[in-house]
Amino acid sequence: MSSLSRVAEELKRGRRFLIVGHVMPDGDCIGSMLALSLACERAGKETVLALPGPVPSIYSFLPAVDRICVEPALLQRGTDAFSAVVILDTSVPERLGNLEPVINELRASGTPAILIDHHVSAAAYADLNFVDPGAAAVGEIIFDLLKLLGWQIDRMIATCLYVTVATDTGGFRYETTTAATHRRVAEFIEAGANVREISLRVFEEKPFKSIEALRAALNTLELSPCGRVAWMSLTREVAAGLQLADEHTDGIVSYGRMIEGVEVALFFREMDDGRVKVSFRSKNFVNASRLAAQFGGGGHPRAAGAVVQGELERIKAAVIEAAVAAVREEGQ
Amino acid sequence: MSSLSRVAEELKRGRRFLIVGHVMPDGDCIGSMLALSLACERAGKETVLALPGPVPSIYSFLPAVDRICVEPALLQRGTDAFSAVVILDTSVPERLGNLEPVINELRASGTPAILIDHHVSAAAYADLNFVDPGAAAVGEIIFDLLKLLGWQIDRMIATCLYVTVATDTGGFRYETTTAATHRRVAEFIEAGANVREISLRVFEEKPFKSIEALRAALNTLELSPCGRVAWMSLTREVAAGLQLADEHTDGIVSYGRMIEGVEVALFFREMDDGRVKVSFRSKNFVNASRLAAQFGGGGHPRAAGAVVQGELERIKAAVIEAAVAAVREEGQ
Repeated sequence: MSSLSRVAEELKRGRRFLIVGHVMPDGDCIGSMLALSLACERAGKETVLALPGPVPSIYSFLPAVDRICVEPALLQRGTDAFSAVVILDTSVPERLGNLEPVINELRASGTPAILIDHHVSAAAYADLNFVDPGAAAVGEIIFDLLKLLGWQIDRMIATCLYVTVATDTGGFRYETTTAATHRRVAEFIEAGANVREISLRVFEEKPFKSIEALRAALNTLELSPCGRVAWMSLTREVAAGLQLADEHTDGIVSYGRMIEGVEVALFFREMDDGRVKVSFRSKNFVNASRLAAQFGGGGHPRAAGAVVQGELERIKAAVIEAAVAAVREEGQ
Repeated sequence: MSSLSRVAEELKRGRRFLIVGHVMPDGDCIGSMLALSLACERAGKETVLALPGPVPSIYSFLPAVDRICVEPALLQRGTDAFSAVVILDTSVPERLGNLEPVINELRASGTPAILIDHHVSAAAYADLNFVDPGAAAVGEIIFDLLKLLGWQIDRMIATCLYVTVATDTGGFRYETTTAATHRRVAEFIEAGANVREISLRVFEEKPFKSIEALRAALNTLELSPCGRVAWMSLTREVAAGLQLADEHTDGIVSYGRMIEGVEVALFFREMDDGRVKVSFRSKNFVNASRLAAQFGGGGHPRAAGAVVQGELERIKAAVIEAAVAAVREEGQ
């Protein structure tokens, strides 16, 4: 593992950087990319930003967000060489999606890759790897990096960094949120991040379709006789009728977990190709990742997912049975 | 206005305190009372805690919460005299509910009253008044007070203080959340407040009835043709069928405000006595307090309420019309 000062040296020395993130980019990925890009630019460097998927609309207010290129073909219009490729928040190269071959090609022709990440499971697949699983967000590492470089944090950079931490800690609620996290956030606010404006945009502003999706899902909410497992579902017909995209059903599963007494919440979403996406959430003790693994999926101890081939009602019955069994066995 | 060190002197000098809060007590009120009580006790003082209403179930996990007496008659079993009555988070004496006469009696017989509050509108009705509208929560003032006194913050006190700030800032999202707020929260975490456990209890754990109430309300969600006003309602029949209490419908109105493009969200709840409780929320510019005032209510610029006599459908029509007009006029 490299030290953060090695990464700082590379940034200081280089002149032009390609900054990239992962498929289904989230607030930490996008905010970290933009903060680093803005800081590099103010230090007289050039940056090119690329993502293997579109920026969700809730992040469209972020400064400089329109710099992010989501069409890898455009990157190949070779002009100047890149001093390095900086890969953010991406634990394994597969998560680079359609950017992976582009980056492999750059590396094959001599461009070094720098990875900055905070996932416990991160592989050291780049040339320089800085992975800190203790960081609540990659944005925390970017902030420390900028301080190390002595580069100034202005209002735009502070806004991006605030978003990285606020989103990746679920609004400062996850156990990754430390005293040091709150002290960094204090600095973001002092540098000009507008708490109310950002919170409204990121947490309290949703497309009408998201509310319609929540309403449709809540109308299917059921509880197991023991009261420890809750589930909701959305059929292909309902999703098509409401013209829902993936982002509209994000977070619905957490309404099941909220219920007093519930240990495992499940959300079943029938996809266009007929497969069923299952989201698993647990509250206190059930290992959601192990539960999802029974259906070919995986994830974290309290949040996991799987995509299952088969008929919705049959899949529901099997997953609910497994969840009730997990509560019974792991709750001993 | 008194200084905080004057309040500290009184606490240092006294031996036995009555600590009280307001009707419909919230996380800031309850957490501040408990934190102050625990700290006084560790400093060798005695405290008696009283509230004019029950503690909502989500706060039942707070340390020492069972000390809070909600039956004012019990306070009159006069034993020792109180050195002072400490009134927390209560901007006007009317908000003391059934404790007001008890406190008036104590004051008449020579017990001084100390007010600690952070409402802009707070009246200086006590003998010693410390009101800081810049504080995000009364809990912030209690923390500063304990520091001033040199009294130690242990894990239990830190837990109570964390809850005051987390709840009164809506999860660190309101504009009252400053850099200093986050630095205080960092100290609560260092003193042992468990972020994940508290967040689960306070924000992510709801009675099943609350989810049922949300489902019932969402099924009535409508938008004005202009898309700027959203409303939901719960009839007396539906509320009775689900056996809903007030706490189960808390926060429902915010789902209307979340919708992209919506400026004013309304929630109509028919009460047992046939009157209709109307909640008003605005996003960016409409003065919700002025809107509520048209119907005999009041509140803050972005959150207000009114209780209206009359028939639900007629009240809905009138309030919606006023809200659409306010959006048109104030949005110029």
